[in-house]
Amino acid sequence: MLSLPRTIEYVDGKVRLINQLKLPSKLEYIETSDWKRVAEAIKKMEIRGAPAIGVAAAMALALAVREIRTENLSEAFSYLKSVADALISTRPTAVNLSWAVKRVLKVAENAKSIDELVKKVEEEALKIWREDEETNRKLGEIGAKLLDDGDTVMTICNAGSLATSYYGTATAPIYKALEEGKRVRVIALETRPYLQGARLTAWELSKAGVDVVIATDNQMGIIMEKENVSIVFVGADRITIKGYVANKIGTYPLALVAKEHGVPFYPVAPMSTIDPGSKTGEDIEIERRPSSEVLYISGARIAPEGVDAIYYAFDVTPPKFITGIVTERGILYPPFEKSIRNALRGLDE
Amino acid sequence: MLSLPRTIEYVDGKVRLINQLKLPSKLEYIETSDWKRVAEAIKKMEIRGAPAIGVAAAMALALAVREIRTENLSEAFSYLKSVADALISTRPTAVNLSWAVKRVLKVAENAKSIDELVKKVEEEALKIWREDEETNRKLGEIGAKLLDDGDTVMTICNAGSLATSYYGTATAPIYKALEEGKRVRVIALETRPYLQGARLTAWELSKAGVDVVIATDNQMGIIMEKENVSIVFVGADRITIKGYVANKIGTYPLALVAKEHGVPFYPVAPMSTIDPGSKTGEDIEIERRPSSEVLYISGARIAPEGVDAIYYAFDVTPPKFITGIVTERGILYPPFEKSIRNALRGLDE
Repeated sequence: MLSLPRTIEYVDGKVRLINQLKLPSKLEYIETSDWKRVAEAIKKMEIRGAPAIGVAAAMALALAVREIRTENLSEAFSYLKSVADALISTRPTAVNLSWAVKRVLKVAENAKSIDELVKKVEEEALKIWREDEETNRKLGEIGAKLLDDGDTVMTICNAGSLATSYYGTATAPIYKALEEGKRVRVIALETRPYLQGARLTAWELSKAGVDVVIATDNQMGIIMEKENVSIVFVGADRITIKGYVANKIGTYPLALVAKEHGVPFYPVAPMSTIDPGSKTGEDIEIERRPSSEVLYISGARIAPEGVDAIYYAFDVTPPKFITGIVTERGILYPPFEKSIRNALRGLDE
Repeated sequence: MLSLPRTIEYVDGKVRLINQLKLPSKLEYIETSDWKRVAEAIKKMEIRGAPAIGVAAAMALALAVREIRTENLSEAFSYLKSVADALISTRPTAVNLSWAVKRVLKVAENAKSIDELVKKVEEEALKIWREDEETNRKLGEIGAKLLDDGDTVMTICNAGSLATSYYGTATAPIYKALEEGKRVRVIALETRPYLQGARLTAWELSKAGVDVVIATDNQMGIIMEKENVSIVFVGADRITIKGYVANKIGTYPLALVAKEHGVPFYPVAPMSTIDPGSKTGEDIEIERRPSSEVLYISGARIAPEGVDAIYYAFDVTPPKFITGIVTERGILYPPFEKSIRNALRGLDE
């Protein structure tokens, strides 16, 4: 058993989640039976990470449905729909959030009574929660085969337990290796500007008992040379049919230095990350965020007045730098167009 | 004329230098006739950059020698020697500092009277000051030929005017291009953990009227893809006879992504940076600095308690990623062992 606190839980009509804004200095929970408080937590990024906010939104619907006092089913459903809209608007670009909300609504549509509505919504929310963890555990089982006792893993950002319901994606092979008794050392790049690597990945890995150390992002080259890195695991926000991987900014140069040093580079991601509608990096729009997020650290301006900052929040790693993609259906290898299409077909069957 | 304040000046027995710890928020000078205050400025990093602290130390000796009240020449020289030792101890690893101090002492040794001693020391200090700027202007003339109107330059750290007596090394081609009327845009990587790129390079370039923007170090890949980068200029702390370039951490991955995108990559450095005694990266000891410098930002800890940080302050770029090296004796091209040896021979002639 992993000695790692759960990111989010649903018990007896209450949601309990780790307030990630307080990490790494304090482990503090938000516990509420009010769906609006969950929506606020998503909005304020007290919970973040695409899978985690999908789960949180589904649980928020389960809380909302318990508040229904009318006996009129269509009135009850309208209310649920308005809550769903409010939840989606908290982080409008998050695909997992609207996906999870719509999945719950669809099940709710078939309810024949208020009691059934409450029951179905709650069941579906719990199902989404459990499925996310199950997928991650599968990623862990498959990915841990790539790890040997004594290995050093490098990663960037937080594609960890905190970004999911539990266990994480890029961290899943590390947790599984730990459960198998393998000693693995992790180097977490800090990941400017939000420092998810230093704040969150380092926190959860050390909490679970993994030997973890942080480094500034610009050390990726010298670390490959000096620190005996065995493998790189990263998350993925979107994967094209040809194997281009969009992920947190810095992933692409990390893949380049890994290749240069002969270090295997693996994105770890559920099949749902694959977007069959996009082919190459050119089909992926890269989110640009406000320059103020780079220009200020804890309220202090780092550049002179009048100087602006560039802030692309993601980059795209071309398939030629990727050794393989760890999914819950196995590790996909080049040529990726073929292996990805095969894996997608497997899903449909 | 460049509208850029001078890093350090010597006028009428006084040293005036920019307090770099106050940048970028305030332009504040330290003005003193007391050599101890200059030593303090070096120690506290109110002035930094290898050439700049060499110049500052030489000027400190010129201040010290004016305080001599004895008529005994050997007593006067002993005093000067003790000041020299105190200056060298302020930043013991800085090669330029001890080089400049020793150069002044050597001239002082030949003085036949106290008056001559004072005169010779002051003259040599001013000579070191002027020569540094002259070398940089030469680097600028040669490097500016690589720039066209409308170009975008990428750089890391501060190999700028603030690191030298004036004009800088990696910035010299940019300032020269500006003086020639070419419009050049610069992208300065912020350079964690000290943020010299965001704080210092952005400050001096914008002060001089150059269009400059900053970015987090981990954006080096996506910027090469999206921002139409024409060329990369970086400084150098040490260059081996085979063309391996030690420079501020992050330079090596920057060279890698530049190569991948067909963007020319040029270190800009005086011939004095070349170390004929070292061949490859393995001959260069990489300075490791205290992990606290990574773990704390403005006093706040970014990683959980108990998690340590790796901090290599420099990395080494192999010659295969280097297009050419801009020196005051021209641009050296591969094979570097040949071009560097030729340039060094030129120096000896």
